[in-house]
Amino acid sequence: MERHLDQELKELNKDILKMGCYAEEAIYRSIEALKNRDEDLARSVISNDGNIDKLELDIDERCIDLIARYQPMAKDLRFITTGMKLNAELERIADIAVDIAQRVVELADKPLLKPLVDIPKLTAIAQNMVKMAVDSFIKGDVELARQVILSDNEADKLRNLISKELVEDYMVKDPLSAPRAVQLLLITRFLERICDHTTNIAEDVIYMVQAEVVKHHPEKLK
Amino acid sequence: MERHLDQELKELNKDILKMGCYAEEAIYRSIEALKNRDEDLARSVISNDGNIDKLELDIDERCIDLIARYQPMAKDLRFITTGMKLNAELERIADIAVDIAQRVVELADKPLLKPLVDIPKLTAIAQNMVKMAVDSFIKGDVELARQVILSDNEADKLRNLISKELVEDYMVKDPLSAPRAVQLLLITRFLERICDHTTNIAEDVIYMVQAEVVKHHPEKLK
Repeated sequence: MERHLDQELKELNKDILKMGCYAEEAIYRSIEALKNRDEDLARSVISNDGNIDKLELDIDERCIDLIARYQPMAKDLRFITTGMKLNAELERIADIAVDIAQRVVELADKPLLKPLVDIPKLTAIAQNMVKMAVDSFIKGDVELARQVILSDNEADKLRNLISKELVEDYMVKDPLSAPRAVQLLLITRFLERICDHTTNIAEDVIYMVQAEVVKHHPEKLK
Repeated sequence: MERHLDQELKELNKDILKMGCYAEEAIYRSIEALKNRDEDLARSVISNDGNIDKLELDIDERCIDLIARYQPMAKDLRFITTGMKLNAELERIADIAVDIAQRVVELADKPLLKPLVDIPKLTAIAQNMVKMAVDSFIKGDVELARQVILSDNEADKLRNLISKELVEDYMVKDPLSAPRAVQLLLITRFLERICDHTTNIAEDVIYMVQAEVVKHHPEKLK
């Protein structure tokens, strides 16, 4: 017979999946808004953040309530506390999408500095990392979690490339482009932070499953 | 008679205080290294991060162990789960100090763009916010936590001032200063992120004490 707790953990999983979808969507929409100078879309990312905040609080309360009611041991307890951490990371990711959307609003009345190619590429990596990180938690899939951490290297390389181009080809050569180039630079950093948050999630998942600390030991990934 | 759990919670408090001191010190040292072009000091911030990571894991394990062994109810449970969140935030703050230190290493062989006045000011605010946030948790002091959140406005204003100056007075007027100005801009953003993390801590403390959600409702601070 399935325990009541198992049923409740399934519900928790569903909410965390939903939180992951919200976060992913916020990232996607904020960069779509950037690409298309779509101020309305940017504003909708900002105004929708309240729903994500609310879901974060609901999940947090649900976790504390589960611990208090079921007094779960070892594996279940670790699953729930990891869920609380994931929840916080996903909320931060959505907040960063809001940061991006705010930059987009500021840039909306200015011409685009350059056609965007690498920033959407970095966005796709970030989005995929969020998806993989949440899936790795739901499935307890350590291999998938490791892939997330490895993807972060790719994201770092692309971010360095973008930053270098913005500084050397725009700011230095055309100083009047600096204010707009700075905004794109910040957006690139925001995307990088999203990748960092997903890496945190992946590390927590590996720790949850293996009780193995890859967290501060990247050499263990090899 | 004091409960065993109370004794253990005191030990947890001590470790969290220690974590707070480590984080504060890392911030201070990274900016001292910047001010004095002191590459060795910057590298010591980077190499010391392993100790902070280790303490984070110890605290996390201690929290899970406390929940499993004592099955604490309501107030104690909320204190422990909030402690876990604080712990993660403080570790991130120390990581950001490492990010700053890495910029300092990159800047070390280049002349300082300008005498630093506002960045050390922002650093002092950030450090003080970390201290207040940890104290508010230890003492369960909601008023202190509210002060942390209000200090973040001051930090935001100063950050805007610094960014504006770097873009308008340096990048636009002297494009060759752009690579160094970008580094200072990023350091300013790192300090801002530290302030954001302390705001998260303060919000968690208020929620822990009052079970009141100021988290996503800044209007409740008034």
